[in-house]
Amino acid sequence: MRVKIIIEYDGTNYAGWQRQDNAIAVQQKIEEAVFEITGQRAVVTGAGRTDAGVHALGQVAHFDTTATIPPEKWAYALNTKLPEDIRIRSSMKVDPEFHSTLHAEKKHYRYSIYNAPHTSPTRRLYAASVFYPLDEKLMQAAADVFPGEHDFSAFAAAGSDIKTTVRRVYSAKVTRNGDMLYFDVVGNGFLYNMVRIMAGTIIEVGYGKLAKTDVENALRSGERSNAGYTAPACGLTMVEVYY
Amino acid sequence: MRVKIIIEYDGTNYAGWQRQDNAIAVQQKIEEAVFEITGQRAVVTGAGRTDAGVHALGQVAHFDTTATIPPEKWAYALNTKLPEDIRIRSSMKVDPEFHSTLHAEKKHYRYSIYNAPHTSPTRRLYAASVFYPLDEKLMQAAADVFPGEHDFSAFAAAGSDIKTTVRRVYSAKVTRNGDMLYFDVVGNGFLYNMVRIMAGTIIEVGYGKLAKTDVENALRSGERSNAGYTAPACGLTMVEVYY
Repeated sequence: MRVKIIIEYDGTNYAGWQRQDNAIAVQQKIEEAVFEITGQRAVVTGAGRTDAGVHALGQVAHFDTTATIPPEKWAYALNTKLPEDIRIRSSMKVDPEFHSTLHAEKKHYRYSIYNAPHTSPTRRLYAASVFYPLDEKLMQAAADVFPGEHDFSAFAAAGSDIKTTVRRVYSAKVTRNGDMLYFDVVGNGFLYNMVRIMAGTIIEVGYGKLAKTDVENALRSGERSNAGYTAPACGLTMVEVYY
Repeated sequence: MRVKIIIEYDGTNYAGWQRQDNAIAVQQKIEEAVFEITGQRAVVTGAGRTDAGVHALGQVAHFDTTATIPPEKWAYALNTKLPEDIRIRSSMKVDPEFHSTLHAEKKHYRYSIYNAPHTSPTRRLYAASVFYPLDEKLMQAAADVFPGEHDFSAFAAAGSDIKTTVRRVYSAKVTRNGDMLYFDVVGNGFLYNMVRIMAGTIIEVGYGKLAKTDVENALRSGERSNAGYTAPACGLTMVEVYY
């Protein structure tokens, strides 16, 4: 049986989603939990890799098992074995053809910013701090450059090994709630560090270091050096994956 | 010069506000920071004690110093010495008669609840988890019992050593935002564990274990055993102190 799970995690203490040799990853924790329950090794395949320190409210993954646990009970079973910073929000049986990575049609990421003269103890783990006052209207105008199908080379970390740097962004919205700013972006896929570079770029627009035209020029040029900084991982959350 | 400071802290790793012998308290950390800056020992007096694990967005404190740092710069100076889970949001000079504890007229506390079948990795440090579905309308009706001047003995932990158990509650509001519920209460002062017991009581109303009449009876009886459980510390935040 193929089981689909929706996962929330606090990425603070993990090297990211993907299993690796010298650090603890979220994927590994879930694979270990499956093994503890079933005694069988299973690969838990996620919709997308998240970097070290990045959070998720709705990462999606799938795995195959011959265990007879009812599919909707997997969430409860896995949660008894997982550390408190990883939780399975729900589990369900899916078609054996379902693939969490390949069939993902859209992903929603949120970048959270705490905008005040001092950092925030109670928000420091889930938002990036920006001390300069940010103008969210300027940021929204700059974010309006992103929707559509574009070559996002300027917004990708160097060294990405991928076939194409063209991605479609469906929406890019900036909202403010008091000292908190949110940059919500939905796309059909994102290059390595793409959301963090988009966020860093519109933050620089928000305090006047860059203008909207700089963002347009960066996109057109395909040059990473024309875009803004890579905003820190802690501000990023994978909110939802759509199939 | 007497300096007033407004303090935000993540209480997760502290034994509470008040300095004590065998554990690290927030007060101690700030007093150590003052000493590091001035070389002088000063007592930093807070508006209210918060328990171990309780957070603050707007704890208020004062201290006296002969250092010549401009009053509004104290926030920046102290923040360079404080751990990242404690931050001074602002600092100002106040009248030498100002007293953060004695002159506090109202305090606003917020109790945060994450209401879903599983705990939340990204909210676990700042909200209590309740698995049973909660009816916020029933909770608000029960919370409507609190405003006014009452003897809150039923909502105080045993062993409090105080002159009177009469307190005035100005408002008690329950709001829901998706899976999050907030209980905001403003009063002229609170007994030991009072907000956590109020929160635990209306949570029990929210899932049908208690009725509004039970809350009325508890208040009237003055018996702790008639109120609900003491909701966990992590859900509680001291939001603001009014003078």
